[in-house]
Amino acid sequence: MNKVISSSQNPLIRQLVQLKDKSRERKKSGLFLIEGEREITLALKGGYEFESVLFNPEIISEEQLNNLTTKQPNFIEVSTEVYQKLAYRDTTEGIIAVAKSKNHAIKDLKFSNKNPLILVAEAPEKPGNIGAILRTADAAHVDAVIIANPKTDLYNPNIIRSSVGCVFTNTVVTGSTSEIIASLKANNIHIFCAALQASVNYNTQDFTKPTAIVVGTEATGLSAEWLDNSTQNIIIPMQGEIDSMNVSVAVGILIFEAKRQRNFK
Amino acid sequence: MNKVISSSQNPLIRQLVQLKDKSRERKKSGLFLIEGEREITLALKGGYEFESVLFNPEIISEEQLNNLTTKQPNFIEVSTEVYQKLAYRDTTEGIIAVAKSKNHAIKDLKFSNKNPLILVAEAPEKPGNIGAILRTADAAHVDAVIIANPKTDLYNPNIIRSSVGCVFTNTVVTGSTSEIIASLKANNIHIFCAALQASVNYNTQDFTKPTAIVVGTEATGLSAEWLDNSTQNIIIPMQGEIDSMNVSVAVGILIFEAKRQRNFK
Repeated sequence: MNKVISSSQNPLIRQLVQLKDKSRERKKSGLFLIEGEREITLALKGGYEFESVLFNPEIISEEQLNNLTTKQPNFIEVSTEVYQKLAYRDTTEGIIAVAKSKNHAIKDLKFSNKNPLILVAEAPEKPGNIGAILRTADAAHVDAVIIANPKTDLYNPNIIRSSVGCVFTNTVVTGSTSEIIASLKANNIHIFCAALQASVNYNTQDFTKPTAIVVGTEATGLSAEWLDNSTQNIIIPMQGEIDSMNVSVAVGILIFEAKRQRNFK
Repeated sequence: MNKVISSSQNPLIRQLVQLKDKSRERKKSGLFLIEGEREITLALKGGYEFESVLFNPEIISEEQLNNLTTKQPNFIEVSTEVYQKLAYRDTTEGIIAVAKSKNHAIKDLKFSNKNPLILVAEAPEKPGNIGAILRTADAAHVDAVIIANPKTDLYNPNIIRSSVGCVFTNTVVTGSTSEIIASLKANNIHIFCAALQASVNYNTQDFTKPTAIVVGTEATGLSAEWLDNSTQNIIIPMQGEIDSMNVSVAVGILIFEAKRQRNFK
């Protein structure tokens, strides 16, 4: 018999609402929420552990639940009212996992591939862009995504959602710009900074060597520290009325030029 | 002396709120709203005409207003309360134009370039993705963006905003899939459909000839009609856990592969 919670005033539910809304609460508790079957499946694949799994039987059947995981976690049935309090897509998924955070420190990143392709994004702001970048990184099977000076935690529900769960399957680490530059240099990885200054067309460079492609924000670009440590600045030539592109689109163009040069291996 | 409106119950303001919120009202009246200095500047550049321009003097100065346009339109001062009723970014821009729609029918599209590069998106859904696609099209200076079977009108405020005004500077037309295929064929343009079926790696194809790159939705891809009329289906090889990419990122990769082959000319 499952536990059932039908009041949104229940202390556990109140704590979970905090986890959904507040980065600080996620950091403090080391827990976060994952909504949706696809996202939960990818988190299990990525080795995440769940403290409990909440479900609303009006939306998801017991059979679907059982298909989801062989090692049964702590299932908690919640009422429609409670479910809607916790969910973004409040009528479609019916399932939310309470998962344990992993460590994403740059110092623990091991470069197992001798010829890695790395993507670095400095201080990306919009969760939707971060999600799209993580989907591209998954598709390209890059060796790591590194977020420099992050503005949000990786378990922001909008990042999870817009990455369609790729935040769990990519190797993603975070760190300060200084730490990351030190790590890339220690591993002899060429640093290609997307920048307007002193840059050459992106397609003129050889990305078949150990490569980090580094992008900044749409508004301010990369910090001086990155430009000072760049192997070569690169640019996507633009011929339009506005001199900018969506950052996740720019990442796609640069990463897949590297993939093309590497024969998609 | 400018006209001043300080009540959000004013009939004009009530009409404008409808224009902001409802595609049907925009179509019926042939009018739509443009918020923000940058977007308005690009609309003027794109030859759009304004019926009036509303501004809130708490946010934007008269000098900034005068810089914006030499031919003075009908300026209307509005109170902060009224402004916030109409604006998305309700404290930052201070200016909203009421603009007249243009004709975007496929039948009026002229292929002036003998070797055009065209982007076709079938039934794209999210305004944010359409906006990002229009920014890419602007940067790549494609000859036209064609939206097949559109789900929203082009003057959706979220499209204007996420395109940063590129909806005004690109040549954008809409039409049914049948009309568009007929037009492309009549102009001897090769049709490359992004699809999973019977496809080859995108980078193996010659995009230096008259080229249309055609993408569908993330959920269902392209309709059978496109695939039946495809010169060649193309695919971006993916090696990740999920077999999909953000549609605007995929467009960026494909269009810039064509640009690379064309030496960015």
